[in-house]
Amino acid sequence: MARRSRASRDRKIAAVGIPASPHIRRCLPFYDILDDEQLVKLEAQVNWLIEEVGVAFRDDPEALKIWKQAGAKIDGDIIRAPADWVRNLCRQAPREFTQLARNPERSVKIGGSNQVFAPIYGAPFVRDLKGGRRYGDMQSFENLVKLTYMHPNLHHGGFVTCEPCDVPVSKRHLDMLYAHMTLSDKPHLGAITEKSRAQDSVDMAEIVFGKEVMENNCVILGNVNTNSPMLVDKVVTEAIQVYCARGQGIIVAPFILSGAMGPASTTASVTQAMAEALMVCAFSQLVKPGAPFILGNFLSSMSLKSGAPTFGMPEPVLSNYVIGQLARRAGLPLRCGGSLTAAKIEDAQAAYESADSMHSTMLAGANYVLHAAGWLEGGLCTGFEKLIMDADRLGSYQKILGQGLDVSDEAFARDAYGEVDPGGHFLGSGHTMRNYQTAFYEATLSDSENVESWEERGSTDMRMRAFEKWTTMLTEYQPPKMEESVRDALQDFIARRKEELPDAWY
Amino acid sequence: MARRSRASRDRKIAAVGIPASPHIRRCLPFYDILDDEQLVKLEAQVNWLIEEVGVAFRDDPEALKIWKQAGAKIDGDIIRAPADWVRNLCRQAPREFTQLARNPERSVKIGGSNQVFAPIYGAPFVRDLKGGRRYGDMQSFENLVKLTYMHPNLHHGGFVTCEPCDVPVSKRHLDMLYAHMTLSDKPHLGAITEKSRAQDSVDMAEIVFGKEVMENNCVILGNVNTNSPMLVDKVVTEAIQVYCARGQGIIVAPFILSGAMGPASTTASVTQAMAEALMVCAFSQLVKPGAPFILGNFLSSMSLKSGAPTFGMPEPVLSNYVIGQLARRAGLPLRCGGSLTAAKIEDAQAAYESADSMHSTMLAGANYVLHAAGWLEGGLCTGFEKLIMDADRLGSYQKILGQGLDVSDEAFARDAYGEVDPGGHFLGSGHTMRNYQTAFYEATLSDSENVESWEERGSTDMRMRAFEKWTTMLTEYQPPKMEESVRDALQDFIARRKEELPDAWY
Repeated sequence: MARRSRASRDRKIAAVGIPASPHIRRCLPFYDILDDEQLVKLEAQVNWLIEEVGVAFRDDPEALKIWKQAGAKIDGDIIRAPADWVRNLCRQAPREFTQLARNPERSVKIGGSNQVFAPIYGAPFVRDLKGGRRYGDMQSFENLVKLTYMHPNLHHGGFVTCEPCDVPVSKRHLDMLYAHMTLSDKPHLGAITEKSRAQDSVDMAEIVFGKEVMENNCVILGNVNTNSPMLVDKVVTEAIQVYCARGQGIIVAPFILSGAMGPASTTASVTQAMAEALMVCAFSQLVKPGAPFILGNFLSSMSLKSGAPTFGMPEPVLSNYVIGQLARRAGLPLRCGGSLTAAKIEDAQAAYESADSMHSTMLAGANYVLHAAGWLEGGLCTGFEKLIMDADRLGSYQKILGQGLDVSDEAFARDAYGEVDPGGHFLGSGHTMRNYQTAFYEATLSDSENVESWEERGSTDMRMRAFEKWTTMLTEYQPPKMEESVRDALQDFIARRKEELPDAWY
Repeated sequence: MARRSRASRDRKIAAVGIPASPHIRRCLPFYDILDDEQLVKLEAQVNWLIEEVGVAFRDDPEALKIWKQAGAKIDGDIIRAPADWVRNLCRQAPREFTQLARNPERSVKIGGSNQVFAPIYGAPFVRDLKGGRRYGDMQSFENLVKLTYMHPNLHHGGFVTCEPCDVPVSKRHLDMLYAHMTLSDKPHLGAITEKSRAQDSVDMAEIVFGKEVMENNCVILGNVNTNSPMLVDKVVTEAIQVYCARGQGIIVAPFILSGAMGPASTTASVTQAMAEALMVCAFSQLVKPGAPFILGNFLSSMSLKSGAPTFGMPEPVLSNYVIGQLARRAGLPLRCGGSLTAAKIEDAQAAYESADSMHSTMLAGANYVLHAAGWLEGGLCTGFEKLIMDADRLGSYQKILGQGLDVSDEAFARDAYGEVDPGGHFLGSGHTMRNYQTAFYEATLSDSENVESWEERGSTDMRMRAFEKWTTMLTEYQPPKMEESVRDALQDFIARRKEELPDAWY
C-alpha cells in the first residue's frame, strides 16, 4: 500500500517537458491487400499447421501439463489442436489494452487503431560516427535510453537498446531495468532470457507501480521469439508463466528467415508465423485468460549470393500488409516490421531499406513497432545516428497516420481564392498566415536549402547532422523526477539480487 | 508508306537482349484512404473551383476560340464551366492507352492497373561521384539515355534526363529527340517549350513510326505544367494543339508548392490541382476527342525555416494516395510522385525521402511515374548514382505490385513440412531447392553481407557501389538496331531544322 501511494504521487510529479503524443491514434483506413479467396487459403493453411503439423513445446514439463489439462492432443512434445478451439482461446486476449507508464501521460494503448513506436532491441554492437563500431556497454545502453526518452517520436522505451556487454549476463537485466525505470518515464519491456530474470522484471515493476496497480493493469511486457519452425522452447513458456500469471503482457514473434526457419516462400512463412503465434497465444490464455498478448511477425528474405538475411525487400514489405490483415481478423494486437536494414552504416542503403520497411509497417497497422529506430546490420548493431535519423522520419508517419486528410472548412481555404489572382501566389494570403506554422511537418534532419547554402554550412550529410543532434541532446538531458524512496527500493532490490546471483558471462 | 514499312521491319529486328517487363501490371488492390464524406467534400471543392473561380487560359487566342465554340463562359481570359460538362468531356479521354515504342516489346500501357516508371525530367545540373556537380551537357544527356535504356526497371525514357546546356536552347530538342530515338528503343516524350519544338517532336516521331502508324497510335506524348494557381499559358495549349491534334498524348501536371502556388493546405492544393488538370483535359478533348491524356499531380510541402520546397514529407506522401483515388474516380490515367528529395547528394536523407515518396507513388496506383529515378536537389540536379540506386529499388516495387502474394499450392509448401522437424531448417528441403532462385528479389546495390566481409571488400557505401555499376554499364552499352534509312532521314530532318533555326540561349 505504501508503495502504491508513493508511485501514484510520483506519477503526478513526473510529467516533464518533453512533448510527445503517447501513441498514435490512427485515422487512416487499413490497407487490406488480400481478397476473400486468398484469405480463405491462408487461414486454411494456418489451420492445417495447427491441426496436422502441430507445434512442439519443448523442455518445459509445466507447459505440457497446462496443455494436457486443457485437453490438447500431445504427441511427444508436439501439440496439435482443433484450430477453432485455438482461435477461440485467442479471442480471450484483449484486442486493445493500455500499458501504463510511470508517467501516466506516457501510457500507451496497444491494439485496435493505436500504433506505438519503440527503438531497436537486442543488438550486441553499437556504432556512432566518432566512436566507430564496438561492443555495446552500459554507458551506451544508458545513453540510448536517454535519447529514446527525449525523442518525441518514440513512444516506448523497448528494452535491450543494445547489449551492455560489460556487465555479467546474469546481472545485466537488473541494471537495464533500473536504467529504464529511472532515466526515462516512458513504458518499457522486461527481461525474458531466463525465468528468474523475468521474475526480477515483474518484481521491480511492482516496486515502481505498487502491487494493486499492477494487479489491475499491464505495466510491463516480455518480448520472446519462437524457435521456428514450429518449436516453442521454455524461454517462451516460462516468460508467459511469469508475465501473464501476474496479469502482465507478452509479445511473441516468430523470427523466420524464409528458406531457413520457414519455406522459401513468403506465403508459407507468414502462415507459419501465424500458426506458431496463435498456438502460443492460446497457451498464454490457458495460463491467464485475458492476459495481454501481442502477435508478432518478423520475416526476412534471403540473399541469393550468400544466404544472408535481407531487409526492406519486397517479400518482407509485402508480408507486413498480409500479417496486418490476418492479425486484425484474429482480433489480436500486432507487432511487425520496423526500420530494418542489412546496411552496416547509415548510407542510402540503410535509409531506402528502412523507409520501405517502415512505410509498410505503418500502413499495415502494426500496433507495436519494435526496431522502429536505430537498427543496422540486420539487428546486430545499434546506430546512434541511425536512431536519431529513423526517429526523425517517424514524425512523418505520425502525421500521416494520426491526421490523415483534413476536410474542415479551413483546409479548403476558399477565402484564399478571393485574394489571389490566376498565376499569383498565396504567400501573403490570410489563409497562409493563419496556417503556415502548422501546415507542414518540419523534419529536423532534412536539409532542404539550395546547394549554395548547403555548401556554405559545410556540405553535411544526414549522418553528420544526426551526430550533432544526438550529442547535443545528451548534453541537455534531464532525468524525469522519481521519488527517492522508490529509487532506494529499486537499489535495495538490485543489491540483494546481485549478491544472490553469480557472475556469469553467457 | 515506305517509311512505315521500314519502321515496321525495324521494330522486328530491334529486340535486344536487355530483359525488362515493358510495364507493370498491378495485381495489388488500390489503397483508397478517403471515405465517402471526404470524397464528396473534395469533389464539391473541385467543382466550385471549376464553376466559380475558373481557370485563366492566357496568351493563346486560339485556345479561347476553342472554348468559345464549345459554349464555355469566358470572362476576360477566365473560363468557368459547369463541372458536369467538364467531367463528361474528360470521360472522352481513354482510361487506358498504349504508347508504342519503336521496339514493340517495349510498348507500354498507361492507365488502368498498369504502372510505368521513367527517369527524372528537367534538371539543369548533373552530379556524379567523380565529376562532381556541373551543368548538364549533351554527353551527360546521352549517357543518361543509355543507362535508362539499359536498366530493366525503367520502362520509359522520359525526355529531359538533364538539360544539355552546351547546345543552344533553340536547337537542343532536336539532339535530345535524336538521342532517345537512336540510343534507346524505349518509348519517350517530346519537347513542349515552344510550339515549333512540339511540332519537330511529332514530325520526328513520324519519321520513326511512319504516318499511318502514327495516325492510329500514340507514339509520343508531351509533358506540361500549368502555371498554378488557376492559370494555363500558351505553352500548355499549344502543346495540346500540336500533340493531340495529331492523335498523340499529353501529360498535364500542376506543380504546386503548398503555401505559394496553392493554399498552405494539402487538401486545398490537391483539389486545385485536380480542377486545373480537369479543365486542361476538357480542353484537350475539345481539340481532339479521345486524345490520350494523363492527369498529373506534383505537390510539394514547404520548409518553415526558409520557405524552400520539401519532398518525401507526410503532406505530399498523403497527397499521392488522395490524388490516386480522385483520378480513378475521374477515369483518367495518373502521373504523380517519383523518387523525390531535397537532398544535395545521395545520402540517407535522399534515400529516406525518395523511398517514402516512391512507396506512396507505387501504392497510389500512379500509372506514369516521371522522376522515378535520378532526382536530387528538388529536381535541379540529376544524380548518376541516384539514377542507378533508385532504379535498383524500383525492382522491389515491381515485384510487390506485379506479383502480390502467391497463393498457388507451391507457395504453401506443404511438402516441406513433411521433411523438416520442429526447430529444424528448410535449407535443404525439396521445396527450397525448387524455389530459392526465384523466391526473393535480389537487389544488386544492397550489401547484405556481415560486417567483416563488407570491410574486407572496402567498406563501400551504396553510392560507391552505384558509381561502379553505372560506369561499368556504360562500357557495356550496345545501341539498339535501327535501319540506316530511318537514321538518315532523322539526320536530314535535324540538319534542315538546324539551318532554319537561329542559335538562341534562352
